[in-house]
Formats: sequence, C-alpha cells, structure tokens
Amino acid sequence: MVYFDMPLEDLRKYLPQRYEEKDFDDFWKQTIHETRGYFQEPILKKVDFYLQNVETFDVTFSGYRGQKIKGWLILPKFRNGKLPCVVEFVGYGGGRGFPYDWLLWSAAGYAHFIMDTRGQGSNWMKGDTPDYEDNPSDPQYPGFLTKGVLNPETYYYRRVFMDAFMAVETISQLEQIDSQTIILSGASQGGGIALAVSALSSKVMALLCDVPFLCHYKRAVQITDSMPYAEITRYCKTHIDKIQTVFRTLSYFDGVNFAARAKCPALFSVGLMDDICPPSTVFAAYNYYAGEKDIRIYPYNNHEGGGSFHTLEKLKFVKKTISMRE
Amino acid sequence: MVYFDMPLEDLRKYLPQRYEEKDFDDFWKQTIHETRGYFQEPILKKVDFYLQNVETFDVTFSGYRGQKIKGWLILPKFRNGKLPCVVEFVGYGGGRGFPYDWLLWSAAGYAHFIMDTRGQGSNWMKGDTPDYEDNPSDPQYPGFLTKGVLNPETYYYRRVFMDAFMAVETISQLEQIDSQTIILSGASQGGGIALAVSALSSKVMALLCDVPFLCHYKRAVQITDSMPYAEITRYCKTHIDKIQTVFRTLSYFDGVNFAARAKCPALFSVGLMDDICPPSTVFAAYNYYAGEKDIRIYPYNNHEGGGSFHTLEKLKFVKKTISMRE
Amino acid sequence: MVYFDMPLEDLRKYLPQRYEEKDFDDFWKQTIHETRGYFQEPILKKVDFYLQNVETFDVTFSGYRGQKIKGWLILPKFRNGKLPCVVEFVGYGGGRGFPYDWLLWSAAGYAHFIMDTRGQGSNWMKGDTPDYEDNPSDPQYPGFLTKGVLNPETYYYRRVFMDAFMAVETISQLEQIDSQTIILSGASQGGGIALAVSALSSKVMALLCDVPFLCHYKRAVQITDSMPYAEITRYCKTHIDKIQTVFRTLSYFDGVNFAARAKCPALFSVGLMDDICPPSTVFAAYNYYAGEKDIRIYPYNNHEGGGSFHTLEKLKFVKKTISMRE
Amino acid sequence: MVYFDMPLEDLRKYLPQRYEEKDFDDFWKQTIHETRGYFQEPILKKVDFYLQNVETFDVTFSGYRGQKIKGWLILPKFRNGKLPCVVEFVGYGGGRGFPYDWLLWSAAGYAHFIMDTRGQGSNWMKGDTPDYEDNPSDPQYPGFLTKGVLNPETYYYRRVFMDAFMAVETISQLEQIDSQTIILSGASQGGGIALAVSALSSKVMALLCDVPFLCHYKRAVQITDSMPYAEITRYCKTHIDKIQTVFRTLSYFDGVNFAARAKCPALFSVGLMDDICPPSTVFAAYNYYAGEKDIRIYPYNNHEGGGSFHTLEKLKFVKKTISMRE
Amino acid sequence: MVYFDMPLEDLRKYLPQRYEEKDFDDFWKQTIHETRGYFQEPILKKVDFYLQNVETFDVTFSGYRGQKIKGWLILPKFRNGKLPCVVEFVGYGGGRGFPYDWLLWSAAGYAHFIMDTRGQGSNWMKGDTPDYEDNPSDPQYPGFLTKGVLNPETYYYRRVFMDAFMAVETISQLEQIDSQTIILSGASQGGGIALAVSALSSKVMALLCDVPFLCHYKRAVQITDSMPYAEITRYCKTHIDKIQTVFRTLSYFDGVNFAARAKCPALFSVGLMDDICPPSTVFAAYNYYAGEKDIRIYPYNNHEGGGSFHTLEKLKFVKKTISMRE
Amino acid sequence: MVYFDMPLEDLRKYLPQRYEEKDFDDFWKQTIHETRGYFQEPILKKVDFYLQNVETFDVTFSGYRGQKIKGWLILPKFRNGKLPCVVEFVGYGGGRGFPYDWLLWSAAGYAHFIMDTRGQGSNWMKGDTPDYEDNPSDPQYPGFLTKGVLNPETYYYRRVFMDAFMAVETISQLEQIDSQTIILSGASQGGGIALAVSALSSKVMALLCDVPFLCHYKRAVQITDSMPYAEITRYCKTHIDKIQTVFRTLSYFDGVNFAARAKCPALFSVGLMDDICPPSTVFAAYNYYAGEKDIRIYPYNNHEGGGSFHTLEKLKFVKKTISMRE
Repeated sequence: MVYFDMPLEDLRKYLPQRYEEKDFDDFWKQTIHETRGYFQEPILKKVDFYLQNVETFDVTFSGYRGQKIKGWLILPKFRNGKLPCVVEFVGYGGGRGFPYDWLLWSAAGYAHFIMDTRGQGSNWMKGDTPDYEDNPSDPQYPGFLTKGVLNPETYYYRRVFMDAFMAVETISQLEQIDSQTIILSGASQGGGIALAVSALSSKVMALLCDVPFLCHYKRAVQITDSMPYAEITRYCKTHIDKIQTVFRTLSYFDGVNFAARAKCPALFSVGLMDDICPPSTVFAAYNYYAGEKDIRIYPYNNHEGGGSFHTLEKLKFVKKTISMRE
Repeated sequence: MVYFDMPLEDLRKYLPQRYEEKDFDDFWKQTIHETRGYFQEPILKKVDFYLQNVETFDVTFSGYRGQKIKGWLILPKFRNGKLPCVVEFVGYGGGRGFPYDWLLWSAAGYAHFIMDTRGQGSNWMKGDTPDYEDNPSDPQYPGFLTKGVLNPETYYYRRVFMDAFMAVETISQLEQIDSQTIILSGASQGGGIALAVSALSSKVMALLCDVPFLCHYKRAVQITDSMPYAEITRYCKTHIDKIQTVFRTLSYFDGVNFAARAKCPALFSVGLMDDICPPSTVFAAYNYYAGEKDIRIYPYNNHEGGGSFHTLEKLKFVKKTISMRE
Repeated sequence: MVYFDMPLEDLRKYLPQRYEEKDFDDFWKQTIHETRGYFQEPILKKVDFYLQNVETFDVTFSGYRGQKIKGWLILPKFRNGKLPCVVEFVGYGGGRGFPYDWLLWSAAGYAHFIMDTRGQGSNWMKGDTPDYEDNPSDPQYPGFLTKGVLNPETYYYRRVFMDAFMAVETISQLEQIDSQTIILSGASQGGGIALAVSALSSKVMALLCDVPFLCHYKRAVQITDSMPYAEITRYCKTHIDKIQTVFRTLSYFDGVNFAARAKCPALFSVGLMDDICPPSTVFAAYNYYAGEKDIRIYPYNNHEGGGSFHTLEKLKFVKKTISMRE
Repeated sequence: MVYFDMPLEDLRKYLPQRYEEKDFDDFWKQTIHETRGYFQEPILKKVDFYLQNVETFDVTFSGYRGQKIKGWLILPKFRNGKLPCVVEFVGYGGGRGFPYDWLLWSAAGYAHFIMDTRGQGSNWMKGDTPDYEDNPSDPQYPGFLTKGVLNPETYYYRRVFMDAFMAVETISQLEQIDSQTIILSGASQGGGIALAVSALSSKVMALLCDVPFLCHYKRAVQITDSMPYAEITRYCKTHIDKIQTVFRTLSYFDGVNFAARAKCPALFSVGLMDDICPPSTVFAAYNYYAGEKDIRIYPYNNHEGGGSFHTLEKLKFVKKTISMRE
Repeated sequence: MVYFDMPLEDLRKYLPQRYEEKDFDDFWKQTIHETRGYFQEPILKKVDFYLQNVETFDVTFSGYRGQKIKGWLILPKFRNGKLPCVVEFVGYGGGRGFPYDWLLWSAAGYAHFIMDTRGQGSNWMKGDTPDYEDNPSDPQYPGFLTKGVLNPETYYYRRVFMDAFMAVETISQLEQIDSQTIILSGASQGGGIALAVSALSSKVMALLCDVPFLCHYKRAVQITDSMPYAEITRYCKTHIDKIQTVFRTLSYFDGVNFAARAKCPALFSVGLMDDICPPSTVFAAYNYYAGEKDIRIYPYNNHEGGGSFHTLEKLKFVKKTISMRE
Repeated sequence: MVYFDMPLEDLRKYLPQRYEEKDFDDFWKQTIHETRGYFQEPILKKVDFYLQNVETFDVTFSGYRGQKIKGWLILPKFRNGKLPCVVEFVGYGGGRGFPYDWLLWSAAGYAHFIMDTRGQGSNWMKGDTPDYEDNPSDPQYPGFLTKGVLNPETYYYRRVFMDAFMAVETISQLEQIDSQTIILSGASQGGGIALAVSALSSKVMALLCDVPFLCHYKRAVQITDSMPYAEITRYCKTHIDKIQTVFRTLSYFDGVNFAARAKCPALFSVGLMDDICPPSTVFAAYNYYAGEKDIRIYPYNNHEGGGSFHTLEKLKFVKKTISMRE
C-alpha cells in the first residue's frame, strides 16, 4: 500500500488528542531562562572557499549552557544595508557541511545562517560540533532519538532546541542582519527544530517547515518502521519497563505541542507517500498550528517532499511575507 | 566484499587492451561534420527565479541534427568583462532541473552552463528536452543504454555527445563568455560525456571528470550488476544473438577510447567502493588519459566520490589551471 | 498484509466513479479511421523451427500508421477448412519470442496469432518490432508507461492498441482463418490490450482477459508501488507540474473505460494476492464490463493468477462459447 | 561481482579432484538390481485436456521399490510407426503440472514422457506423486536436499534416480516407442537426474543437460548461498557433527562422478552468471563427461541458461544425432 | 504500517466465528485412544555435559504409535522429594539442542522436560528425533505445515500433538515428578503445541503460552506473508484444487478450537508488532480460552514477545499458581 | 561467494603486518595506572529472581575513572569454598539483561560474573550502565565504534577496556572467588574485550575468545560491509579528512596488537562464513596470539560460530586447563 496513511480528506481535518504535561510551558520557560544566562558574543571568522560572490563566516556561538556551537553565515558580496536572514536547520544525521553546500538564499539576496547540529554530521554531510552531555549517558539505541530520553532535562533535543533558540537570538543581533526579518527554515529534523523555535522565540518573523520530523511520536512509531522514528520502537522493544517514561519525555518535544503555541506565518509541505515522516504526523502539527498557515501537498512524493518545485514556493512565500509587512 | 574490484596498486597501473574499430576517428569526424552543418544561433531567454544575485537564461541551442536542446546559463549579477565558463553535464536519469539547483560556479565567479540531457530527467531532477530518434526505435531494455544500440549511427549517445559538443561550440561564442576558458565538468554520466567531448572538441581548456560512467563497458558488466551498466547485461541476456553487435557499437562510445585522444589538463576522481562505476573502469580511462592529469582517490566512498570535499578540489584545480595559463 | 486490497465482498461490487473526457469515443473513432487508411496486405513467410506438426509463419502486417509489426502465425499441420483463431498479446517487457514458446492453441486445434509488442521484448522474451515515434520523445521514466504521456495523441499505447486492432483486422481476412471466430487472449499487459481491442473492434467473438494491466491507473498507483504501475508514480514524483496532464492522457487508455463499451462474452481471472495488478483494479474493469462475463478468482495467487489451472478454464470457455454459437 | 566464479578460460579446463567411495559402482549396481526386481507393467490412461492434436496419457509406472510414480506421455495425434522419445525430468520444486505445459517435443514429432518427481510439486508446478520413505525420516532442513542425507541408502535422490532409471526402462518398452532412440532431457535438477541416468542406464541414446544441479556439492556450497544448494549449508550449520557424513553421502549422488561414467553423446548448457548452479559446478561435470559432448555457453545469462535460444540448439542436436546414427 | 493488524481495543474483544467439523472431539478421542495403546516405559539415560549442579537425562519415550521420541529431563542436583515439572515444547524448526541450552527451570527449582519435535531441528537448534510417516508422503511445500495436509489422519501435527500428549503422560509418572504439578510451556510453535495438549490432557495444571503459532490459520495467511504460515499460502497457490481440503484439515489443529476446550489456568503473551504470529491470531485463541487466564501485551515487540521481561512473569505466575493451590 | 575471505590454508598462516604506534604500551600502562587510582570496593546487593538454586548479586564496581559499572555475579547455591570464576563480556549492542539469561557457568559449578557494557544494551538485551564521556562528544556515526575516535584518549573502547580490566581486579578479590582461577569469556565484542584484557591484566588464567570483534580493523572494513565494522566505513565516508586519524586511534585498540602480548592459554573459535567478523580478522589475531592456543573452525557457520557445539568445547577446555594446573 503506497497510501499507507489516512486518505487526504481525513488528513486535512486530523486533530488527534494532544498529550502534554502541565508543566510544559514552565519547563521551557526555565530552560530558556537558564540558557540565556550563558549568552556570549559570537565569534565570526571570515573564511575563503573560492567563492568570489559571497562572504562566508565560520560562526561560533554560545548555545545550550553556553556550549560552543558552529554555523556558517553566508552573505551576498554585493549588498546594501541590513539583510533579512534565513536561519536554517539541517536534516537528521547531517552537519553543516561546507558553505558551498548552501548557496540558495544568498543568491536570492538574503543573509543565510546554517546551524550545525550538535553531535550529528557523520551520516551524510559532515558536522563540526560536539554534543556535551550534562550527565552520564544512559544506554540508548544508536542514533539521537533516545539519547537521554528517560528525562526531559537530559533529553538530547533539549540541548538542540536551545542551540537553535540561541542561534536566533545571536544572529538577530548581528550588525549585518535586519533583526525584524528572521525566517526559520528546515526540512525533516530541520523542520521539527524550526517549528519548535518558532513557538519558543518571539524573534521569528516566518517559518518554512518542510516534511517535519519530531511530530506526533506515538502515531509515528505505530505507522512506520522506517528510521529514524524506529529508533524509539527499538528502544521500547528492549526497555519494556520504560515505555511510559519515554513517551512522557517525548511529549515535551512534540511538534504538535509547539504548533499549538506558534504565532508567525508558516508555509508547510508534505509528501503523501512519505514513510519517513508520515503525512498524518505532519498534518497533526499543521492542523494545530496556531499562526497563519498554508501547506503544499505533494501527492506522489516521499520524504523529498516537493524538492526543487517547493524551493520556488518558499522563495515566493518569503518575498510575499516580507513585502506584505512593509 | 567491499573492495570488490582490484587492489589499489593494480588499479594504478591497469591498462587493459583497448578495443576500437578502425573507423573510430572517421565515424566521429563525419558525425561532427554533419552536426555542425545544422548549427543555428542559440536563443537566450532571461528568466526570473527570485535570484537577485545571478542572471539566469533559459537557453535553446541546436544540438545533434540541429535539434533543439535546452540548458541554463547562469551568470553572476556583478561581473566585469567576459567570464570563464564551466559547461556541466548531468548524471544519468536527471535533467537540468531549476537554476537554483546549480549555484556553485556563479558564486565562485564563473559563468555556468548546464546542458539538459535529451530524453532524460524523469528519475530525479526534471528534464525539458525530448530525444528525437532518426529511425524506428528497436526493442530496448528500459533506460538509455541500449537505445539504438544495434548500430553506432543510431545509438542514443551519438546524439547526446553531439549535443554536448555543440553546447561547447555555442557557449564559447557567446559575448559574455571567454571562449579560451571553457571547462567541462560532470559526474558519472556527466563525467563520461565531458570526457568524450574533451577528446572530440578543440575548444576545451580543462576537464573535471568525476566517477565517470560510460567507460570500459565490457569489464563494467562483468564486475557489477548495479544499474545502469546492468541495462546492457539485461539486454544481452534476452538478445543472445546480438551480443557482439552490442559491444561493437559500445566501442565507439567508450570513455577509454576517448581518454586516449584527449589533450587538455584533467582532474579525475574515483571512489574505491563505487559499485555503480567500479574503480577499474575509472582507472582504465584515467590511465589511458593522454593529457596532463591528476586523480583524487576516495578510499571509503561509493558513487558519491569525494562529495563536497572534492568540490573544493575542483575549485582549486580550475583556479590554478586558469592562473597557470595566464 | 497479504490481502492488502479490499475484502472480496467489496471487490465484487466495486464500481468506482469512471473518469473519461467527452471526446473519448471521437478520439478512438478518428484514430481507427486514420489507422485503417494505412492498411496493407500482410506478408506471411513460412519458417522452419523443426516443428513437424505445426506450420509457422513469420507475419509482417501494417499496424499504427502502416508501420511494420511482427507476429507469429501458428497452424496445426493437419487441419480441415478454416480455423477459429486465438489472437494473443504479450505481457509487459516481453516480445513474441520463438514459435515454440506458443504451442498451446495449435495443439488444441486452433489457429494462433501472437503479436509482437512494438519496442518491447528486451526484458524477458525477445521482441523484433521497433517502435516508431511520430514526434520527438519527451523525457520519460524508463519503460513504456510514460512514453509520450503528455498527450493522448503521442502516448505509446495509442500505437500499441492500433497495432492490436489491425492485427485483428488483418488476421481475420486470411484464407486459413474463420473470420467469425476471432478470440482475443492475453494476461497482464496482454489482457489490457485484449480488453481495449474487444471494445474497439467489432470483429471479436470472445475475450480471455487474465489479471489485466492498464486498468484504473489512479487507484493502482495509490495501492501498489510495484513496477510497472510505479513508473507513473516515479514520473509524477519528478514532474510535479504535470500530474493532471498525465492522468488526463491515461483516461483515454483505461481498461475501465473500454470495459464499459465491450460487448463480446469474456472470461476474466484475478489473483487476490496480486500486487502487480491489484484485485480492485481488475474488478473495476470486470464489474463495468458490458458483455456477458465470468471471472475465476484465485484467492492465494499473485500475478500468476490461476496459472495452468486457468489454462484449462480457458480451453473449456472457448470450446463452449464456440459451440453455443453454432 | 557478477562473474563471481572462475574466468571462462579456467572453467574450460577445470577438473577438480573427484571424490568417490570405493563402492560407488557396487552401490548403484545393487540399487538397480533391487529396483528392477519390483518392475511391473505401467498403466496408461488416456486423458482429455482439450488438445485435439496430441494424445495424452496419464502414466503410472513402478519406480524405486515398485512404488507408483506418475508421468505424462504425450504423442503427436498424427504419426507413423514407432517414435523416438524424449524423457524429461523436472526442475527442483516442480511437479509434472498439466500436459499442456509440455508441448514442445510432440509438436516437433517426438514422443515425450515427463516424469513427476516424488514428493515435489508444491513450489511452482503441481506434482501428484508422493515420496515413500523406507525408514523414519531424520531431521532435515526443509526441502529435499538433506532428506535422509545421513546414509546413501536412505537419501532421497537414491529413490528419485531409480524412478528415473525405471522410467527409461518402462518407456522404452512401450509399443509406440522406438526403444533405440531414448533421449534424456532436463534443466537444473532435471539436468542432474538426466546426467545420473545417462551413466546408470544403457538404454540412453543422447543426453540434453541444461544448467545441471546436483554436481560438485562441495564447491557449490562454498561459492553460492542461493537455494537450493544452501539447504546443505543450513543443515551443516546446525548439525556440525555430521558434516563429513553428509558429504560422504552426497558423493554417491554427484553429477561429476556420473559424468565420468557416461557414454552417450551429450549437449550441455551453462549460464556464466548463474548463481543457482554456478558455472564451475557445471564445467566440473562437463569436463569429466566421458562421452561425445558439446556445450553452449551463455555469457550474460543466469540460471535460465540460453532459454528459448537454447531450445533451438536442442532441437537441432537431437535431429542431427538421430540422423547421424541412421 | 507497523500496527498492521487490528487496533488493541478490537483485539481485546475479537471472537471470530470458529470453524470445526462435527467429529472434532471424536477425532481426537480416537487418536488419543489409539496412541495410548502403544505406551511403553520411557528409557532414561543419565548423561554428562559437565554440569555439576544439575542432573541430565537423555529420555526416550513412546509417542504417536509408540514411535521413539527424544527429550531432555533436567533436575536440580540438590533437591527434596518430588518436583513440579515444566514440560516444554520447542519453536518451529528447532530441536532439543543440548541440556545446557535449557537451564532456567532447574535453576528455579523445578524439574524440566524438553521434548524434541519429530523431524525438526535442522534450522537452528539441532534435533535428534525422526518423523515416521504412516503413509506415503504427498507432495508438500518444504517445511512441516503442509506435510500430510490433505487428511487430518496423515497430518504432521497429529503425530506431534500425540507425542506431546504422551510426553505429559510419561513424565507425570516418573518417580522424581509430582504428577499433580505439570506445567506446559512453549513459545510460537511450542505455544501452539502446549495449548493443544492443555485441551487434550487432563494432567495439565497450568499453561504458559507465548506468542502461539498454529492458531486461526485462515486469518493468519491473509494478514501475513511471513514464514512459516506462508507455507500454507504457497501450497494453496500451487494446489489450487485442494484449498478447501487444506483448511478442513487445519481446522482439527487450530489453537482456537483447542482454546475453547481448555480448563487450566493460563498465562499468554503477545507482541503487537509480531508479523510471524499476528496479534489477532493470538487474541482469537486467548479470547476463546475457556480456563482462567491472563495475558501480557508487549506493544513494541515482534515475535520475541516480552523476551526476558516475560520470563519473570512466567516465574511469578507458576509460583503463584502452585502456591494458590496449596 | 559464501567463502568471501581467504581459503582456509591461507587463513591458517595469515600474519599481516601489524601497525602500532611506539607508545602503545605506554598508553595502556598510563591508562591502567590512572584507572587503578580510582578503585573503590564493589557493592554487592543480593537480588531475588525466583532462582532457588543460584545466588545472584547485583554488583556495582568502579570502572574507568571510578565510574559506576554494573554486573551480575551468579553463584551456585550449593558450593564448597572458593570458586573459579568466569568473567564474561557481552556482544555488541547488548547489556547484562537478567541473571536468568546467564545460567551456564553456575550450573557447571563456577562463579560467573557478567559485566554490563557502558552505554550499550538497547539493541537486544537491556543494559543498565551509562557511559560517562570525559569530554564533549564529537560527531560520530550512530553506534559505538566511532565514539571519540579522533583521539585514543577519548575513544569509547578505552573506557570499556578499563571497565573490563577493573572487573577482573575487583572480582578476583571477592571472598567467594579463587583469585588464581579467573577465566575470561566472550563472543564477538565480548571476545574482543576479553582478548584485550587478557593482554593487559596479569590476573587472567585462561581466555575463551569466540568469533572476536575489534580485530584488524583495516582489513575488516575492506572485506565486509556488515555492521558494526561498517560504522567505521560510514564515518570515513563522511569525514574524508580524518581517515588517518581514525586508523591511528583504532591501532591502540586492535585485537591483533593485544594478541601479540597475551600469555595465558586460549581457546578461539571462528566461523568460515562469518561476514560480521570475517575469518581473516579472527585468524590475524589468533595467529599472532602469543600464549598457548587452540582454535575450533566451523566451516559452515556464520557469526554464531559453533553455537551450542562450541559451548561443550569451552566447558571441556576450562575443566582441562584448571585440572592441568593442579
């Protein structure tokens, strides 16, 4: 069955019961409060990758607990005044790679910041940022989805989301950047991170959320056995006595719960044949999304979503959203 | 066995017996002669894909028998005088996609021309150029490798190589382009096409040939059953009476035979775990390559070769080659 | 899930909304009219394959636009008067092979004509007939399902169905054949072709339609990702902007629409575990079939349907149908 | 590696050390002696499968220990005098199916006898003959290759080879058959059985041995993990203490040992990409074959060997061999 | 779809229509009667496997028709008086292995008897007991599920269930064993056998039935294509004319029918992601189970069920059940 | 090719060039020195898992840097005086599970200690011990093989080997244990750990080393693409610039280098079809092993090696080795 999930008409109105603990907002308020306390000025080092028409900076900024997180800042060489900035988060397993892997938004006239994802970047695009665990690292299924999963405080994505939050804080204060025009962008894990930060940060002007991961975990593991959601399944299969604990922790990191709190305009995308991030998990987040929103549905696509066709949609959406505000 | 091909020390000196028919050069001389007769001025239509810092043209030029072939020409917005130009050929099954899929070389300050591959572009990146067959199309195995394979005159790659040849002829005459500085580039099928044209055309200044396809067919089909080389195997399996005819035709299109005729400086790359274009087929071409040459060997990579690491090598190589000439 | 499609009780009454354009009948009327204009007498060449008890002819007849199509005509050596004739169409990817691949119907006392499928015959059984495209060949996914799919006029199966139509016209006029007793037969693609011709031609006396392909494309691509239906999915995945055009073209070639116009008695077969031609696509055609009809349901079979068990059903059905008429 | 076995030049002269026990000939002499003691006249029952131009008989003959074995005898309807007869053995897992599955040799003017393989016929073509074990059935890996494998006396193929031997004895005595012109034929397991009987019986006039199975077990299990040879591997993996016993038993049933004793002219075939019956196991038998012999080599084929192309070779070979004798 | 079967709330109340022939009870009564007639005293041979703290016996007892069946009896070295005994049946394809493969229950203070499964024990753990067929062995799909399946009298599991029945009869009479405290245990095939015997024998005090196989065949083959249930599918696919006969035979061996007759307290387990023994087939048996019962549901487990977590549940359940009786 | 590695006769004498840095011994001397400084008395907590005939202790001991490592100590209930002790290390991905998963050696009359592997135990058997990284955790490929791989100081297995070293130190001092009779045992990763410790510790009396992992990495990644060795390949594929660094680090943890330093008698085992730990990597260690040694070769086994057959070999070997010393 290629259409293994719900029919489209059901997807469009799918609003599953949300599960969150009472202290969801407190948890994040306190996490942000603590993280902000570690803020330090970023270090921007100009780097030369033979690209004459862009300026590229190797950025080191302070993320969760002030830990050093890497990123690339890419600016068009020829520019006037402050620029809107697209802050981009990378898909699962990849790192920031090289600046020439990321030339779209600068070619389109925007500043572009690509955040390295801590600990990742050994599966496809290389990463340069270590993960720093506060505590001993409990047994986990290889990957990142069950790293520290027995407690929201120690869960891996708490650190990642705070890195991303601080990336926005940091980038929006740079002199080259128009702090009122920060756009978050990401696909898959990148989409999940962007979605979370758009709910946690007041500095986000628009959200581009493609085939997001990290949404509606409970259904995800019941409907797909593709990695990486299946890391959770494998963990629960071995740690039979910890299943409830796991899903409690995950509820603090569920895109559906962030969606219900987001406010900025957003453009989503979904592939109806996507078995990595099944359509119902994407629609659960989209349907709960509390800001202005639109979605592009790609009926014959898998996890690549709309690919280059959707790139054009995003370029249009960003241009329109900026111009409408003006 | 991950290292399923020869050991590296044998690869480095692998010079298998070349097989070509006596009229190899005549065949191509005549083909070029005929093709040139159809030359027409290209049509460049400026197109807007929301990319402020580059100029993009939808190019239609006359390829084999004057048939209309598509391409993108991408120029840096801010430039002085004529530019060196990288002419790029696409990998098997892909088309030219969209201009924002190709932003590397313009960011690096070069003109960039991407040729659409006739008939291809439905497997991954979309294509826009039809294939025009002169003759009825004999039964073939699905794909392009056995299209018209019973005769060198009707073989699909005769048309493709002439399109590519004419792309160089056409692009080098454009006013924005420095006709002395045409660099050919391509990976996999793109590398095979670039290799062929670097032997057939006198206008090529340098060659970037990554993990090339279309080289040493005979060994390829004996050492790998991965597609697309396996299209040949499948065809021979069904058309048992035509095996010799098939390999005779392929000899006119074998990168090994082109390599022995090429003259411009070249940078190759190879992945030692590449089962799509096995290392011995790449080294057969590289070792016969008659111009100045260098190769980057990636010992733990498959068909992706050196990926973004190799991009840097290419940027350096092109810069150095241009500057050495000056 | 082995029974991945509907339960049998739902299959039996499955009558999905049919979609066809208003000019469906005109399109075919005109296509037939044009094709008939090219009619030429067939050439029958006696061939010797060491088969003493049958006579075998290599037939060349005029198909779509009078293009030369191949076939085998096999007659029992010992016979009296004109014979009923089974006209057979081959499954996807196969060609006409050799006469000794087709000995059933002559052993049973019938004439037997096997039509080569243009362009096919390199995947399993060899073919000898080229495809002749009228127009340049737009980018397509390797195979035949998306060849010329952007326009009903250029679609590959327009040519195939006309070849098949002309096969019936031609064979029924041969002196050895009883023109009143033409039976069409085919499995999978062969079944789809036979179904189409049984609706388009008035010369068909009975239809044997096994596990037919080319029926109810829209559902097919949503319920199975097996080739060859998946060629359509892959094409739509890359050519996101052409999805509607594709399904519009396919509607002119949908077995469901032909079934609703057919009149002769028919025997169908279906495998309930068939993931190549899923049961609901077969039942959609069967339930709409407008002539007298019967179906054999094989609950534990895949695309092989009833195999040799069903051969017996066909032998019986043909004998009975002929005798009832007399 | 597609050519996973030896290079062709090595295959052509491959003569591995043969291993057989001293009593090999005694074992078979005694087995034959015992089996012959059970001989009974066969029962031929005429059956009607709607095939007007052949006569079909459901044959029951006495095989190993007089057990009742099934077969089809197919005769051309129109014939003069006694006919040469092709005795055919079926591939692994298949049974005799239906008469209309076997129409080649009668169409070519020969009598044709197809022996059902005891116990088989539930994987693809149905069988009708039970296996009768003399003794309790020791634990075995599912399939037939390790059935009774701990003792040559109880090994499954002892019974099968005797059935086949008796088929020849029985058929050659029928009034419709020319007892001087018995040709054995089979592919894969059928080829292995035919090879064994051609060594054991003096009544065989020629052998058609395609991609034979049951040859050179020791190498087979080291070079391929495809079923059915892998049944032996699986058994040895579990019954680690019985490995030597297994290979001792198998030595009595090794085609290589039979080949060294055969005398009639033979036509072999081999696919160089065959991973079911790897080329070196076929060549081991062929190179040892003691009669006149020829082999057709199919360089790009798997276990299908030369398919329909090879059918023609067999038709020619049989015709020529018969005519040379006359 | 990972949850490919019904939702849990439906599973809990799933009571499909049971199908059994009228003579179900008579069939088993007569079978037991006949089997008991062959009873002989078991032979216990003490064996030394270097295990100082247990006593191990190689047991040979009389099973179906008095045929010699093997087993291991393992007793704690240090013990007082008669012991409760766990009688264990092995999963599909495995044999009794070695005593040190079975150390749980003796460590826990119980006697432990492991029955070898006739004919099995060549896929993973070795077996030592042959199968003795009464009659010739009809063609079957490799494996055990279709061995003798055309008649309940000849069906393989009739013999296996009687061996298991006699194991209980035999073991409960040993001097070291407390005949009032026989607990049956098994997973997968072992669970299916234990379930059957718990219905057929009055000597069973408790049942441990993990992820049972041999339950609700009709649904099993429609919902999973995993082996071994798929052996039935493959057989029915080839023997199209025998489908009804097959399912009639299976009805005499269906765990659902035995469950409805069982009386002793039972602990079941099920993995909701089990595609070997799908949850609905387990719940069909559990829901019909007529004795006191409980079930442990493992939501993220496959056929391993609760693994070592469930071992603890079984240890507790047995202890509690024994103590409650006292 | 099933025998994908060298022929057995080559394996037997395979002594590849060893590569180690000059400070190999210093590195380990210093690591041990530092680790020992953290020694603390272990905590033994008696636990009840319903096993009457063994005593089970939940052990917490101080491993690398005094970090708390878990283990099970299992003692026969009925015993006299101090016992020899088997210290066991677990295979890759597994944890210590439950005491009843480990009943062999106590049944055989030995003390048995099973060390939990830090961070592991979420793939199959559950683990309870966290990994504590000293430093930030650099990007790694999911799993454990590339954790901290850029520096021998931070490499994951430095911590694991020290835990194992300290396990021996700790266990040998317990009052119940005969400190002169410590036997190390493990399969796969467990075998690799045991091998390392047998070289690093003077307290080991014998080594049982089954199908060891962590040996001859360089060849391993060239000859197999099975996990977990392939984690190294994947890492090197992405981090192309760090390949040399990786193999430098691994050289400090290569079983081949430990083997050359070991002194106690050892029993190895190897499966000639093992594609997880290929035979040549096992023989490289075995052939360099500097103590008395023997090896059992299982010609038709994969990574399961000799399974239960080999268990018997180990029981015998330990008994003999102990008795010879006395």
